[in-house]
Amino acid sequence: MTVKAYGAHAADKPLESLDITRRAPGPHDVQIDIAFCGVCHSDLHTVRAEWAGTLFPCVPGHEIVGRVASVGAHVTDFKAGDLVGVGCMVDSCQHCADCDDGLENYCDGMVGTYNGATADAPGHTLGGYSEQIVVHERFVLRVSHSADQLAAVAPLLCAGITTWSPLRHWNAGPGKRVGIVGIGGLGHMGIKLARAMGAHVVAFTTSESKRADALALGAHEVIVSRDAEAMASQTKSLDLIVNTVAAPHDLDAFLNLLKRDATMVLVGAPATPHPSPQVFNLITKRRAIAGSMIGGIPETQEMLDFCAEHNIVADIEMIRADEINAAYERMLKGDVKYRFVIDNATLAA
Amino acid sequence: MTVKAYGAHAADKPLESLDITRRAPGPHDVQIDIAFCGVCHSDLHTVRAEWAGTLFPCVPGHEIVGRVASVGAHVTDFKAGDLVGVGCMVDSCQHCADCDDGLENYCDGMVGTYNGATADAPGHTLGGYSEQIVVHERFVLRVSHSADQLAAVAPLLCAGITTWSPLRHWNAGPGKRVGIVGIGGLGHMGIKLARAMGAHVVAFTTSESKRADALALGAHEVIVSRDAEAMASQTKSLDLIVNTVAAPHDLDAFLNLLKRDATMVLVGAPATPHPSPQVFNLITKRRAIAGSMIGGIPETQEMLDFCAEHNIVADIEMIRADEINAAYERMLKGDVKYRFVIDNATLAA
Repeated sequence: MTVKAYGAHAADKPLESLDITRRAPGPHDVQIDIAFCGVCHSDLHTVRAEWAGTLFPCVPGHEIVGRVASVGAHVTDFKAGDLVGVGCMVDSCQHCADCDDGLENYCDGMVGTYNGATADAPGHTLGGYSEQIVVHERFVLRVSHSADQLAAVAPLLCAGITTWSPLRHWNAGPGKRVGIVGIGGLGHMGIKLARAMGAHVVAFTTSESKRADALALGAHEVIVSRDAEAMASQTKSLDLIVNTVAAPHDLDAFLNLLKRDATMVLVGAPATPHPSPQVFNLITKRRAIAGSMIGGIPETQEMLDFCAEHNIVADIEMIRADEINAAYERMLKGDVKYRFVIDNATLAA
Repeated sequence: MTVKAYGAHAADKPLESLDITRRAPGPHDVQIDIAFCGVCHSDLHTVRAEWAGTLFPCVPGHEIVGRVASVGAHVTDFKAGDLVGVGCMVDSCQHCADCDDGLENYCDGMVGTYNGATADAPGHTLGGYSEQIVVHERFVLRVSHSADQLAAVAPLLCAGITTWSPLRHWNAGPGKRVGIVGIGGLGHMGIKLARAMGAHVVAFTTSESKRADALALGAHEVIVSRDAEAMASQTKSLDLIVNTVAAPHDLDAFLNLLKRDATMVLVGAPATPHPSPQVFNLITKRRAIAGSMIGGIPETQEMLDFCAEHNIVADIEMIRADEINAAYERMLKGDVKYRFVIDNATLAA
């Protein structure tokens, strides 16, 4: 089946309209008409081959929402017309310890929604900047938000789960003071989610201009990280920090804000390393630096259900498919509040 | 009360015999005749002012064992003649959350056994290279080893608890694969303790020559970390790593050996930072790098009792007090298996 998509033929080419093929749904597959697709920084890194191993043609997009078009014979949890989502992965080995634990994101055989290994043409997966996608039922999420919220639900599938997973795993909730570092696509979701979980939320930004926004998103306090006095006021006060900043920066300034036994979780990997953190800052309070990568399917469903119940969606700016190259340029300047979402109906134009 | 000690008057002076004053025991104090004192790398760093803030005269030593000489009026847990130990601290605020949790080692008011703030002359604490010490009962440990093991018990008070605490906190035990990096004063205790706890122990060393020793200490496997193939054989296999190496080294090589959700605990702080670890290695398996510093008093007692029960002591080389300067030079060359212990009876000579 041939569908319209948007992608690039080479790292130095702009994205353009493409025709791609989707497989016929197998017995465990769900065929989805994609309504909207969020635009993640990973899309840009991959399509421009800034990370190793990009395969072309490259069709990015892993914040996918839409309606079920059809389901395979063995699929019982979904039916045509259901609102559904697909995140950063479309397959995994499905039988290792990670998969058994519902943490398919850590499976060595995890297949990314784009640029992953597949038997389908052209030999690598093609993502959500397309009219349709066919996905194994295990990797399809139920969306229980109202249909008019659908576009703003899309970013929950990556930015949402990437912050939700560490917040849950490290027990954010009532009585906990949680720091969110960086107020961008991930950070703005981190603030909303941590607040809704009942934590006391301290947002950290390099930019005084984001103070009002951070408060509006739900932060109880906002600290401009360049302000040494303001930073010092938070010393040894935080139970958890979720650090969403992928650019190399001074981790020690944040480690010092953690209580004894608290963890700073990094959810972004910088292209060049952060300055090496001081071991002394870890040892003196038994602190930790950890990493976390998106989240598993069960916890993604939990997050979506939580967000529907608490009426949480992302703050988005809708674009047409043919605006994606310009949107990338704006993303690089941080000029988006806080996530671009493609209206996939414009792919057919 | 004046007692003999061994210490230095300045960073560039060798240690020599000194007379120091100990306070008269207060109602909560225990006066201890020191029999033996272990020699820790921290002693050398401090007395040579390689770390900031050394106060002179400096009398090092925080691996202290001996017999109670007398106790204050309110002391009920100890009596004259008891075998006891004192580790890295002799006081703390005793009322903060850390102290209430039995983790006095993380108290902001923790007073080190030497070079710590005190009202006693000369205004800073003087350590275990001395005939006697007077310590608040809270910081005195019961030793239930036999008296003839006493010298080899001394290193448990620092090297022992520094490895015990992270092994316990991160749940080393049956069914767990635990890596111990570095086979020195700390590492040799880490191997013994992890083995006695029931873990599968993998020792890592840069030196093939330590293989037989590591096996004799209790390691199930020994990996020479310069051997890339041997290192690769441990990929994603370890539940915990206790890294005792304070010299800057490549942490990524060890991070890759951790399973999902596993932690590498650093117990040594390098003078210059380690090469910055790759965030990618943390994120892809939700791994962590943490720090741990000695241990609290209740867990130190637990460790000593465990060691007595399992007949565990350190491997030591006994020296006279006047051999300490030469012993430091040998320590710098790694020429000790695995801890020097001063026979404090030689202080009077």
